[in-house]
Amino acid sequence: MQKFFYPRRVAVVGVSEDPANLAQGIVANLLHFQYQGKIFLVGRRPGATFGLPIFPGLADLPEKVDLAAILAPARVVPALVRECGQLGISRVVVESAGFSELNEAGRTLEEEVRVALKQYGMRLVGPNGLGLVNLEIGLALPFAQIGSRVHRGRISIIAQSGGVATHVLAWMTKEGLGLNKFLSLGNKLDVAENEVLEYLLEDPGTEAIYVYLEGMQDGRGLLKVANRATKPIYLHLANVGPETAAIAQSHTASLTTDERVLEAACRQSRLIRVKTQSEFLNAARLVGQPPLRGNRVVVFSRSGGEAVVTAYACRQFGFTLPPLSETLVQSIQARSRAGVIRPTNPIDLGDVFDFTLYTDIMAAVCRDPGVDGVLFHYGPVADFEREPARKMARRMLELAREAKKPLVITVLCTLDEENYLRDTLGAPVFHFPEDAVQALALSRDLAARRESLSLAEPPPLQKLQKAAAIAETLAGPHPGGFLPLAQALTVIEALGITVAPWAAAMSPEAATAAAGRLGFPVVLKLSAPSLIHKTEAGGVELDLRDAAAVQQAFARLARVARSRLPPREAWQVVVMSQVAGGQELLLGARRDDSFGPVVAFGAGGVDTEILDDIALRVAPLNPAQARDLMAETRIGRILAGARGRPPADLDSLSQALAALSQLMLQFPQVREVDLNPVRGFPGKPGLVALDARIRADGPA
Amino acid sequence: MQKFFYPRRVAVVGVSEDPANLAQGIVANLLHFQYQGKIFLVGRRPGATFGLPIFPGLADLPEKVDLAAILAPARVVPALVRECGQLGISRVVVESAGFSELNEAGRTLEEEVRVALKQYGMRLVGPNGLGLVNLEIGLALPFAQIGSRVHRGRISIIAQSGGVATHVLAWMTKEGLGLNKFLSLGNKLDVAENEVLEYLLEDPGTEAIYVYLEGMQDGRGLLKVANRATKPIYLHLANVGPETAAIAQSHTASLTTDERVLEAACRQSRLIRVKTQSEFLNAARLVGQPPLRGNRVVVFSRSGGEAVVTAYACRQFGFTLPPLSETLVQSIQARSRAGVIRPTNPIDLGDVFDFTLYTDIMAAVCRDPGVDGVLFHYGPVADFEREPARKMARRMLELAREAKKPLVITVLCTLDEENYLRDTLGAPVFHFPEDAVQALALSRDLAARRESLSLAEPPPLQKLQKAAAIAETLAGPHPGGFLPLAQALTVIEALGITVAPWAAAMSPEAATAAAGRLGFPVVLKLSAPSLIHKTEAGGVELDLRDAAAVQQAFARLARVARSRLPPREAWQVVVMSQVAGGQELLLGARRDDSFGPVVAFGAGGVDTEILDDIALRVAPLNPAQARDLMAETRIGRILAGARGRPPADLDSLSQALAALSQLMLQFPQVREVDLNPVRGFPGKPGLVALDARIRADGPA
Repeated sequence: MQKFFYPRRVAVVGVSEDPANLAQGIVANLLHFQYQGKIFLVGRRPGATFGLPIFPGLADLPEKVDLAAILAPARVVPALVRECGQLGISRVVVESAGFSELNEAGRTLEEEVRVALKQYGMRLVGPNGLGLVNLEIGLALPFAQIGSRVHRGRISIIAQSGGVATHVLAWMTKEGLGLNKFLSLGNKLDVAENEVLEYLLEDPGTEAIYVYLEGMQDGRGLLKVANRATKPIYLHLANVGPETAAIAQSHTASLTTDERVLEAACRQSRLIRVKTQSEFLNAARLVGQPPLRGNRVVVFSRSGGEAVVTAYACRQFGFTLPPLSETLVQSIQARSRAGVIRPTNPIDLGDVFDFTLYTDIMAAVCRDPGVDGVLFHYGPVADFEREPARKMARRMLELAREAKKPLVITVLCTLDEENYLRDTLGAPVFHFPEDAVQALALSRDLAARRESLSLAEPPPLQKLQKAAAIAETLAGPHPGGFLPLAQALTVIEALGITVAPWAAAMSPEAATAAAGRLGFPVVLKLSAPSLIHKTEAGGVELDLRDAAAVQQAFARLARVARSRLPPREAWQVVVMSQVAGGQELLLGARRDDSFGPVVAFGAGGVDTEILDDIALRVAPLNPAQARDLMAETRIGRILAGARGRPPADLDSLSQALAALSQLMLQFPQVREVDLNPVRGFPGKPGLVALDARIRADGPA
Repeated sequence: MQKFFYPRRVAVVGVSEDPANLAQGIVANLLHFQYQGKIFLVGRRPGATFGLPIFPGLADLPEKVDLAAILAPARVVPALVRECGQLGISRVVVESAGFSELNEAGRTLEEEVRVALKQYGMRLVGPNGLGLVNLEIGLALPFAQIGSRVHRGRISIIAQSGGVATHVLAWMTKEGLGLNKFLSLGNKLDVAENEVLEYLLEDPGTEAIYVYLEGMQDGRGLLKVANRATKPIYLHLANVGPETAAIAQSHTASLTTDERVLEAACRQSRLIRVKTQSEFLNAARLVGQPPLRGNRVVVFSRSGGEAVVTAYACRQFGFTLPPLSETLVQSIQARSRAGVIRPTNPIDLGDVFDFTLYTDIMAAVCRDPGVDGVLFHYGPVADFEREPARKMARRMLELAREAKKPLVITVLCTLDEENYLRDTLGAPVFHFPEDAVQALALSRDLAARRESLSLAEPPPLQKLQKAAAIAETLAGPHPGGFLPLAQALTVIEALGITVAPWAAAMSPEAATAAAGRLGFPVVLKLSAPSLIHKTEAGGVELDLRDAAAVQQAFARLARVARSRLPPREAWQVVVMSQVAGGQELLLGARRDDSFGPVVAFGAGGVDTEILDDIALRVAPLNPAQARDLMAETRIGRILAGARGRPPADLDSLSQALAALSQLMLQFPQVREVDLNPVRGFPGKPGLVALDARIRADGPA
């Protein structure tokens, strides 16, 4: 990537004298940002623009360039790329559209380009993007204006949409935040987000990274890169939502929409998920500030009302406002005009006009080990207060920096004062308290995850003991799709997870005999590949207390099979001991398109969707992590023994989840596992799985 | 209120020539906003300021004034108010601080003022506030600057914090939104929010009202006023949160924090709750636009990325993006440059440079009965596009107005263009898609509630049939606080709610005999005023299957009573039939400080807090409204018969909730009722209450 961001000679390909020529925009940007290298123009017709000659071909350039930025019709791009290869230009940026995003012909063009890249050992950014920017050297390759007032700063951007990146950049500029590097991914024909991210994490000029994606090529790779990060990475993935989950085929799948996987992945990594552009812009104002290493903040304000509003926002984001130390209380009381109200946190300084008290409070708060950060609402400043107010702000920021605690300021004052606070003093300045609090919350969450992730051992990957048996069962005669129930239960038992005693039965007589062996009452379950929701289809017969009941139930299931299943579809009946009591749980796993194997735990039973109490974690997970996963759900807290009751067997449950994780890792043909219900019993050891669905690819 | 907002002669009391004199700020504001009436100044020392003479007393004024604005030390305010009374000045605005907000002496001063108001039939705004503003006549009484560029508009503000109001006003001004009237409530010694709101709802100059409160004197009154409103009322109540619920004494109370009551009250009324100042500012931009009468929006954008971001925000706020009509699809395809991608909703117009297509799309969307509103992302405009773009925007807004559908525009362009769109064309302009979508969601929710509230019958207030019996039981010998269990169960049965068969027993023998009559198995419960959580205290004995078990259980409960209760506290034991199966529910009611009686329904049992599945409604509620309440919970949806299972007896449950509502209305001494658990049985009629707690004031 270094060669992309630091070229010394750049060729802009596709330039003409025509005023509507888009490639001129690239030249204009390079000139505007005073690119420190040399610029060469290439176009079909010789001529000149911006006082630079247009050469007819890359081969005609007087010097060898390091990078070619191409904005020419898609159909000529493969030839241009090959030419670059022949001339030893190893880095190419293609901004032209008309490739795979458009049609099949465009896809073929990309294929041609890919072949050329491989043949010449070249790398390519794009196509169908805005190229890249490096303001360290004034390199600005977008053909569109990126804002004339964009200036060099500490934040870098990786984006899959030029429009979103431009919007964010415009706002960063408005808020006084500068850009370091920017790369527009376009169609990601070659260079994709993980590689760029890895580079920017090492890049000395970059202190924080905004990543806007609409699709993710390798979510697990992203997690790996992110978890080495010592800089904040703000991940904005907008193209998530219920739509993409519509294809889901079973409980686990339909409850674990992509958005939930994304949330889980970020929570267990150093990625900071932002859901909107403004959330990133809020967070960006804290870049360069000390991280918030805890949950306790002090709010102080010249307006009592704003103090209340800020305190409310703090509670919304999970902050606590600790009481003030006795010394501080007395010092405020002694020096306020009225002098009789006992100050609380939030501190209302409405009747305090002595700014040295503000800095005294700040000093005391910074010293207090019980306070992690400070929010200060800086009200309207009268003309005669301006100089003392500026002095106060400067001192407060010094105190915060010395104490390594973040100080954020919400302001309502003139633009001049705001600019002074932000640009001259380097204070993070917000207009609304809720924005300031949101930014602090993101800082706190990242700091907390850095802490917990650095403490966490890598999960011990305990290989499955009965892997051979599982492989054999999975390889059994099935066409791909859902395994017959008996096969699925066999796999689950091989994972070391207890299943209620069961037997497959192909006739009423076999079912009756099995029920006799297992002991009454029993349940009968119909299993067939196309029968996903057994209960609703009438495929489950409960509470069968004698042989006659079993026979009748078998007959009913056979009728269901005949009437509901496609002709010739194989079906089977499983007889199972009926288990009473306990809590109904769901344990599951599936393979997410972006993040790979994901494990799920939560409230099970037929009402799983309504209960909406499922937590996810990207695999692998060890039993300790499985316990954390369980604790994220309401049912998990109930199982842990709420209100003085004995806990359920959390060991067995966490081992079962770790085993599911391992199944997904060792057997890539398994697409999805869904154990619902599993029963856990408060105060009793063990667990019992009562049903299992496994979807797997058939043997190749 | 008319006399407050439209005085023809105003006296400003407390003015001096001292440059630090605060009352001069009032005069400055009146002059700045060109007050259309006459201004007279009153101060202890004669003199002049702003070219106006300072009279030594109100009695010395050459003309009788309609309103006195007082900013003088608190201690002299009572005398000044009396003087106003004697002079026939019936409206007084007091901006001085130092009253009940400060100390006991201040409270006494307020009492003196109150006496004077009564004596002379006067009305007062304040004290400890910013007074009021009416830009219709240039009346601006705040002593502090409210922003020199504030201009006359359609939005009025009622606020309990001058700081918050000033902040909001500054932002309204920045966003081109004008102010009509403003009243600062201060300590609400006399004039409070409901009266002002009632006035503003009738005020022709006011089209929308922002109400910022930190405490509510009469929430039920507010609901009544609000429900006659045809203008949007944005209620911002910041001083809510878990703290205020810390005093709660039982399940129902602790789960129904004030914030939840507020949410419930707004949901069942025409109040629009905003949680932040910026949420109000987003909503305010839609004042004067047609309401959003449905949930289906079309998004179109010049940037594909922004379209994706906007679509995501739409989903977050519960909008659907319906597919485009075939005609529209074909028209877009025919005219886009590439012409081959099938346009979807959101519509990406990245390769369309013909602005007539934009207006054609808008026209088609406005005609489409399947679309309720439109979001348009208006990207950077190149110089040569400016005029056509403006023309397009004008035409789009016309189309939207004709179709009575809201069109909101998110912009990323120069400030000039933004101002043109907003100020010249009157378009609602937003910077970020999520803000626009939030504003649309508030509009939609208000429109939907107006619809449902106008359709809703007033709940029939069925008087309790056994009111006399209930009154007698409540009047029974108890000192106030929690009723003994037997008394509580008697009240519940008198409400027509089934309780599991039970009997009080004062001895092991009586308990055994009762168990024999009720039939085994039974449970025994210990009841005593100080025993709130029986289960955790060991006060519940379950699953007693014979007489011996009952006797032993009684003995254990007696030991618990001796060891856990304060000496001499009365206790009793209740024997109850043990009921199996069904779902554990909570039915409850309590009296909220702001909104009065509130009814609660949700998941019950010992894990109520963890399950966190309770919905609230301000009483009264009829059975139909009770059904809506139940449907707000997960357990309610399960009881309604999810996934093809038969429903529980929702009639009995809704009647029980309506009866609890009626109990609270007819018996003001009842503070709180908590039935937990009540069991409801899917597929079976009836319900059974297994426990009841009632807290009531003792007989006076």
